[in-house]
Amino acid sequence: MKIPENHALVIFGASGDLTKRKLIPAVYDLKKQGYLPEGFYILGVSRSKISDEEFRTKMTDSIKEFANGDADYEDIKRFSESLHYLAIDTSDENDYAKVKEKLLQLDIERGVSGNYIYYLSTPPSLYGVIPKSLAAHKLNDETGGWKRIIIEKPFGYDLDSAIELKHQIEPYFNEDQIYRIDHFLGKETVQNVMVSRFSNGIFEPLWNRNYIQHVEITSAESIGIENRGGYYDKSGALRDMVQNHLLQLTGLIAMEAPASFDATAIRNEIHKVFKSLRAIKKEDVRKNVIRGQYTASHIKGESVSGYREENEVDENSKTETYVALKFFIDNWRWGGVPFYIRTGKRLPSRVTEAVIKFKPTPHPLFNMSDESKFGNQLVIRIQPDEGILLKFGMKTPGSGFNVQNVNMNFHYSDLSDAYIPAAYERLIHDCMIGDSTLYARGDAVEEAWKFVDPILKAWEDDPSIKVYGYPAGTWGPNIADDLIEGENLTWRYPCKNLSNDGIYCEL
Amino acid sequence: MKIPENHALVIFGASGDLTKRKLIPAVYDLKKQGYLPEGFYILGVSRSKISDEEFRTKMTDSIKEFANGDADYEDIKRFSESLHYLAIDTSDENDYAKVKEKLLQLDIERGVSGNYIYYLSTPPSLYGVIPKSLAAHKLNDETGGWKRIIIEKPFGYDLDSAIELKHQIEPYFNEDQIYRIDHFLGKETVQNVMVSRFSNGIFEPLWNRNYIQHVEITSAESIGIENRGGYYDKSGALRDMVQNHLLQLTGLIAMEAPASFDATAIRNEIHKVFKSLRAIKKEDVRKNVIRGQYTASHIKGESVSGYREENEVDENSKTETYVALKFFIDNWRWGGVPFYIRTGKRLPSRVTEAVIKFKPTPHPLFNMSDESKFGNQLVIRIQPDEGILLKFGMKTPGSGFNVQNVNMNFHYSDLSDAYIPAAYERLIHDCMIGDSTLYARGDAVEEAWKFVDPILKAWEDDPSIKVYGYPAGTWGPNIADDLIEGENLTWRYPCKNLSNDGIYCEL
Repeated sequence: MKIPENHALVIFGASGDLTKRKLIPAVYDLKKQGYLPEGFYILGVSRSKISDEEFRTKMTDSIKEFANGDADYEDIKRFSESLHYLAIDTSDENDYAKVKEKLLQLDIERGVSGNYIYYLSTPPSLYGVIPKSLAAHKLNDETGGWKRIIIEKPFGYDLDSAIELKHQIEPYFNEDQIYRIDHFLGKETVQNVMVSRFSNGIFEPLWNRNYIQHVEITSAESIGIENRGGYYDKSGALRDMVQNHLLQLTGLIAMEAPASFDATAIRNEIHKVFKSLRAIKKEDVRKNVIRGQYTASHIKGESVSGYREENEVDENSKTETYVALKFFIDNWRWGGVPFYIRTGKRLPSRVTEAVIKFKPTPHPLFNMSDESKFGNQLVIRIQPDEGILLKFGMKTPGSGFNVQNVNMNFHYSDLSDAYIPAAYERLIHDCMIGDSTLYARGDAVEEAWKFVDPILKAWEDDPSIKVYGYPAGTWGPNIADDLIEGENLTWRYPCKNLSNDGIYCEL
Repeated sequence: MKIPENHALVIFGASGDLTKRKLIPAVYDLKKQGYLPEGFYILGVSRSKISDEEFRTKMTDSIKEFANGDADYEDIKRFSESLHYLAIDTSDENDYAKVKEKLLQLDIERGVSGNYIYYLSTPPSLYGVIPKSLAAHKLNDETGGWKRIIIEKPFGYDLDSAIELKHQIEPYFNEDQIYRIDHFLGKETVQNVMVSRFSNGIFEPLWNRNYIQHVEITSAESIGIENRGGYYDKSGALRDMVQNHLLQLTGLIAMEAPASFDATAIRNEIHKVFKSLRAIKKEDVRKNVIRGQYTASHIKGESVSGYREENEVDENSKTETYVALKFFIDNWRWGGVPFYIRTGKRLPSRVTEAVIKFKPTPHPLFNMSDESKFGNQLVIRIQPDEGILLKFGMKTPGSGFNVQNVNMNFHYSDLSDAYIPAAYERLIHDCMIGDSTLYARGDAVEEAWKFVDPILKAWEDDPSIKVYGYPAGTWGPNIADDLIEGENLTWRYPCKNLSNDGIYCEL
């Protein structure tokens, strides 16, 4: 693992939840494993007027609670000495003079030579202000050391606002400096999609329209919207999950082999996939995209509110807590192969997985069980129980030649001696060493919005497109099964296979 | 499972070991599961002068010892009433009048209408006499009911004797009536090779010269020749294992998809494979076939005799207890793909497996571990721990994109509720219902001899071809590794992977 050059990590929004729960624990874990340079410090920036000491105390608590590795008292204490804090009015350009002054001072104290990462852990409304204000004080100028800026999703609210955001940042930071973080890409199992495909000779020959019937991506959550009603009601499942995480995953599954293993080559291929997404026409949205909203129900004997009864949610809200869609990738590899994406809140289980559904055998030679008739499935389990599952037919013991489906299983946890870094830990380190492979590139984000935008517009413009209710704790509207092409084919329901798959199902 | 028509099973060599250990227990297990018809009896025929009662007592003991399912006292008693015995001089044609008389009498008593299976559990020297003698008394005549004859290997000693054997039987029984039993084909996992290939869409596209680098078949035994020195010293590993079992397994791995699932279609395809075997030229035997003989050694601290010191073995014997060979199948599917077969006595472990070694990826994109560089492997484990193992590359958790090999495993024993019939049970039942799928056909046996014969002849004619010694308890002569084409490639040594594969290794 590479050790980054000396640098400072400047966190805007340092008093927020993300800093506490994810960022600081992740950097601590990097330190603990020896992956930080000698010259390094963190400067937390926020509105709250607290001292370095108060900041350190708060962060020490959060490391103890959220760090991935062991949290040792002495280690944390030593680490916390690299934490500094500065209170400013983030929306006031003039205040950034204080940031500059503080950085220059700390650089000398801590042996850093002007290399900075700016982490924008703030509301998106500040994504315009901060880059501009940094530039006003030349804090974007790379002559005295490199400058990188990390921004958190949402990267816009629709296509127009995404383009606007681009116009706000691009005058001050160029694409090479911008790191759009999608923590989903920091997950080992997501990266493993690419590794599995391109390090095994046996997958690639099968990975195309000749052998694959369809591809199915599910990201189910069992929780509701918790205390995020205000944010969620303006966003919805399509923006919150599909436009970013699940399309990125689609990109990794569908991409061509990159020419080499570097950020540009890989992100070029993902961009190509997005460029090939067939736009869903406005008139097809009703048929190809199913949206749903959870309704009040009982889960394990406890009553659960419906979405419209949640805090800060409009009682007439049409925001989707569930969305399922069918779409196509118009290129030589995938022509005619349906892709399905499904995500929702208050579903029976927390599970994220991609299913490669292969075509059945061209000529059924044996007595096939109902399940084995449908063909092989490769299930890439992102979470929980990360791993790979291959469903294939084997002879039922005994007379005759009857076939039943069995599972061949690999659990990532079997590599038990390996330290599995948290997503933020991996991604922050990647930014520190200047590797943007797992960050979303601007043009890809824009293409993803181009795909999602017509759906959002159709929903907005045509009130006759239904929002289907589904009782909390169920797999969403039944009508979503009709999306899947092929007689008797439905989505894969992981809960039905509880014992074999080892997937924990809450219902 | 089909219930056969009424019939009698006539066992020649009824006082022998096979009858006691395998045949009678297998038929009892069939009875126990309700797979025998109402009208049924067994007539044991042999030289020993014993009564029905004595025969029943002996067989009762053997059922208790060797039956697959539970042996219940009442069940065995009822079953034993269907056992009868007749002492004749098997080599005297005139004595078969007694057989006929006995059968006619028992048919009436037990409701059987002239359908007979003759099981030749005798030394091969009687394979000529018995069919002829049966015919002399019209016991081969199917006008009064079907007649089938089961013969045990060896089906000849070389190509000439195999053809001679054919000429001895064919005038009296036609090919449809002859069931050449190879108990190896009765094993669930051997049959599963065919089922796995043709009931899964994902294997067939990969199953050819484009993606497979080589195929490797190993059948290792940890025991020596036990008390079979007299037989073994005249036979050797090539005749004992390769000509029949391992070439049959090769046939199942290499065959084209049959047009339909019946005995003729399947056996046609196996015959086609054997017809395509490239004969090993006399001058290439030295290079492409390695023979070995175990020498005295210590295994687990106990001293073990060398082969030439075993009972009834010639002290200058050149009989091979180990053979490894490389050969090719000259057809469109397999052109240029080396096949390797290896079998031996006194090897470190008892294991039979086939390894499909796939080619490495055309372009190594990631940092591959040494093992993962070599490409994927599909290991079909015949015994013990029957199942399938897929070796493939996955991301090593942590920073970067490093690849390591992991195992995806299916154990046949996971289908734990299924009753797995013994090989003889399955095969005898198949004969009872007239299904010859899993029996070797005459033309295929002959082709197999054609392949093996030049090797035997070269060994016979050229004393300068070495017999390599190997210490008992090792994997045979090291020089066998040189057979495997490709830099740094060797045989797969299951014992090296003890913990991951779950294969029991005796050393």
